Amino acid sequence: MRGRGRPRSGTTDDTRQQIIDAARQLFAENGFDGASMRSVAASAGVDPSLIRHYFGDKSGLLVATMQLPINPLELIRPVLARGPEGLGHRIVSTFLSAWDVHGDVLSGLIRTSIASADRSGPMLAILHNVVLPELTAVLGGPNRELRATLVMSELLGIATVRYVLQIQPVASAPAEVVAGYYAPALQALITPA
Amino acid sequence: MRGRGRPRSGTTDDTRQQIIDAARQLFAENGFDGASMRSVAASAGVDPSLIRHYFGDKSGLLVATMQLPINPLELIRPVLARGPEGLGHRIVSTFLSAWDVHGDVLSGLIRTSIASADRSGPMLAILHNVVLPELTAVLGGPNRELRATLVMSELLGIATVRYVLQIQPVASAPAEVVAGYYAPALQALITPA
Repeated sequence: MRGRGRPRSGTTDDTRQQIIDAARQLFAENGFDGASMRSVAASAGVDPSLIRHYFGDKSGLLVATMQLPINPLELIRPVLARGPEGLGHRIVSTFLSAWDVHGDVLSGLIRTSIASADRSGPMLAILHNVVLPELTAVLGGPNRELRATLVMSELLGIATVRYVLQIQPVASAPAEVVAGYYAPALQALITPA
Repeated sequence: MRGRGRPRSGTTDDTRQQIIDAARQLFAENGFDGASMRSVAASAGVDPSLIRHYFGDKSGLLVATMQLPINPLELIRPVLARGPEGLGHRIVSTFLSAWDVHGDVLSGLIRTSIASADRSGPMLAILHNVVLPELTAVLGGPNRELRATLVMSELLGIATVRYVLQIQPVASAPAEVVAGYYAPALQALITPA
């Protein structure tokens, strides 16, 4: 994600990178909750308003530190904004259409997270601090956090089978076929009977 | 699994172990399909009927080579034998009650499989050669193999979240609560609407 479409001078890019470097270090040292926008700004030597200008909020800053080919916030927010009805299908079809072209990147993230079992690592930081709270907020009914984490389990499972282990026929099946079957399995947790 | 309940002499145990050692080597060299019961018997210097006596069939032999605290065949066959109705709940409750007390073992298997992305490794050999064919055979309707592999994706996902990454609240939630929510998500793939 390189800003909002207008060209940047070298100096602006340098500033943006300084903020990202400071944020990456403070998130690693203090965790997502322990690192404030203000402390990142101080460490980077910039005004806090500049961080909001570039990254929106702390979640956007966390995503930027990962330099992903896909911004999960830009994907998930419109998907969630339309509410729980039909959300299972929107989640899995958006997930597959985004990651099918970057399966190697997601595979690397999953393998690193699981090999280290490091819950403070980058993939889990995004899931735990960004994706799960936003998904939980959309769910109604009891045990929302548990159900949101089970939805995430399903997505982690399919990503592992399709991109990491590449088990057939899931690995090569068309995304819309997989989404058609997996959507009700997600929806069962989003709006339980 | 140490046979069927009667005490064994040291010599019998030695023979059993020779068969397991020969099988492990031949499965590694030739894969599950490429290693015959006959070739294992020849390599171990025993009569093929002795392998059937100890291990039942080739799936039982494969499971024995892994020296697991749980025999997945003994778990899964009674669960599947009762057919697709209610299978989602039987699968997840059996899975959790078996592995909750050996979460560290399953965590180790998953981490090894995913770190190496080795589809011929022990965990995936069992899934691919034993669990998936038996589950596929129970399912009705179209795309049975795809749906069985998606059921396996869901189980791999929950095992990774509960035992490997230990993400809350899934990691500590009572098994029956998790099973209650996850069962319909499995059933959606077992008997799609």
